[in-house]
Amino acid sequence: MPRLVEIYAPATTANLGPGFDILGMALEEPFDTICAEKTDSPGVIIDGITGDEGRLSLDPAKNTAGISAAYALKQLGITDQGIRMTIHKGLPLASGLGSSAASAAGGAVAVNALFGDPLRRPQLLDAALEGEAAVSGRHADNVAPALLGGIIFVGGLTPELLEPLPVPLGLVLALVTPNVAVPTAEARAVLPQQIPMRDMVKQTASVARLISALYRNDIEALGKAVEADGIIEPARQHLMPGLHEVRAAARERGAFGTTISGAGPTLCAICDSESIARRVTDGMELVYARLGLACQTRVTRPASQGCRVKIIE
Amino acid sequence: MPRLVEIYAPATTANLGPGFDILGMALEEPFDTICAEKTDSPGVIIDGITGDEGRLSLDPAKNTAGISAAYALKQLGITDQGIRMTIHKGLPLASGLGSSAASAAGGAVAVNALFGDPLRRPQLLDAALEGEAAVSGRHADNVAPALLGGIIFVGGLTPELLEPLPVPLGLVLALVTPNVAVPTAEARAVLPQQIPMRDMVKQTASVARLISALYRNDIEALGKAVEADGIIEPARQHLMPGLHEVRAAARERGAFGTTISGAGPTLCAICDSESIARRVTDGMELVYARLGLACQTRVTRPASQGCRVKIIE
Repeated sequence: MPRLVEIYAPATTANLGPGFDILGMALEEPFDTICAEKTDSPGVIIDGITGDEGRLSLDPAKNTAGISAAYALKQLGITDQGIRMTIHKGLPLASGLGSSAASAAGGAVAVNALFGDPLRRPQLLDAALEGEAAVSGRHADNVAPALLGGIIFVGGLTPELLEPLPVPLGLVLALVTPNVAVPTAEARAVLPQQIPMRDMVKQTASVARLISALYRNDIEALGKAVEADGIIEPARQHLMPGLHEVRAAARERGAFGTTISGAGPTLCAICDSESIARRVTDGMELVYARLGLACQTRVTRPASQGCRVKIIE
Repeated sequence: MPRLVEIYAPATTANLGPGFDILGMALEEPFDTICAEKTDSPGVIIDGITGDEGRLSLDPAKNTAGISAAYALKQLGITDQGIRMTIHKGLPLASGLGSSAASAAGGAVAVNALFGDPLRRPQLLDAALEGEAAVSGRHADNVAPALLGGIIFVGGLTPELLEPLPVPLGLVLALVTPNVAVPTAEARAVLPQQIPMRDMVKQTASVARLISALYRNDIEALGKAVEADGIIEPARQHLMPGLHEVRAAARERGAFGTTISGAGPTLCAICDSESIARRVTDGMELVYARLGLACQTRVTRPASQGCRVKIIE
């Protein structure tokens, strides 16, 4: 049985436009790295966190990775041993890339790996949700793909309601994260409580188009579908500086569509090659330069796996 | 070029539960039969209608088949010739099986067939919609599958927004039409104007599950998905006598799920064999017998084609 493991916990982009709260995709980059070691004392210790600019708590009861690790230990019935972690946040916080979910998934996967992998990934959903709930509310559209990889349809909060969807071959994502804060709570607060029937029907049509595009391996149709969100994006767009300019610039450079990643402010453009995605991120940078906003861009792909485990010892 | 044709215009079941206004499926049975003949005088004549108990108008301007035929003639620019039709309604009226849509599609297809098939099926959408609009409002979830066959995702009212979806192999439908009137207008009037956000998200999840089930050829999952409609069915269920009893009886006999066909009152159960579907329709009959309601049952399959054309002369 391993004594020391490293977990690479992926970023995830939730919603994909109209799939609000029901779709999420794991990304190859960026990712958090959790170095985790078995201890002979019970419970969870967080030794250190880097890459968070001091914003996250070392108290395991207040840290998503700590909470999910503790839950997983309890789930496995382990009371005489524990886990000691150091966390490197490769994911920017509160940026719409599933930072809390990555750490929550990573904490649960770390415990499972250190104690002989008794649980399959979907069985770690509860533990990961427990960590996620402490920060972002109890929803699985980030933790499910962070655990399982690929694109996951989240039909609910139990493992049997998670459904992997096909990932279009050659899909590349151009991401841009402008330097503005969009707290998830605020991004949720601006959403309408009631939706006109007509808009609801349109939203179901957009979701149908999106799911069909995934099965048909049609990246262009996927790009169109992610933009066909008539409910969430209109309510949130004022919180996303540059959204429409970025979308226009991305389209001009060959992207098929651009949407808000999770609750934002990261924007995610759908591309079908790395060279196009690089051109798109160049265009995104120009937009934010004009707006006088710092930003970080990334070109990445869907991750076929969720959290990866490397056994060190 | 043919002088006399017979058109078999299929029944269609719209919605499939949560796919309200965006999904429809063509059925092998029942169907309307339109016998159509070219004439040397311009315009549309309806010589006779059978099977409608005298409820439909012979005035071509007030008959869905007449309206769509006239529109198609205009679309083809034919001003010196016309069409003369007799219509046999194999479909029950106002029963949720797309009766008006079948005749509307049939009228347009008849004109196209008599004048050398210059238009492809999707190009007949406008003509069929024109006929449908006169009776049931301007929506394409019945006319599109009546024209194209199979299961159609109706993303809007133009041909390029129609998308054929995969039809699960071995899908058999058990239909029951109780002898109660449910006017489409009333079934629409009872729908809520506003939908809570939470219910909207659940509905998009149900649609995602349904589309995925079609692509995965999973009849059992399709059956579950058609029942997962948290918006339309709850609002309409009081108009559908026996819905819950029929559903229970169908499930007991091996159906995977039961939903309201279109605006009802026909109910449609999802089965994976003809023998099961026959058992299911037996059970459906028992329910309505207990309720003291006459009903008609049918076992049918998805129709791979829309309106079929037989050239007589």
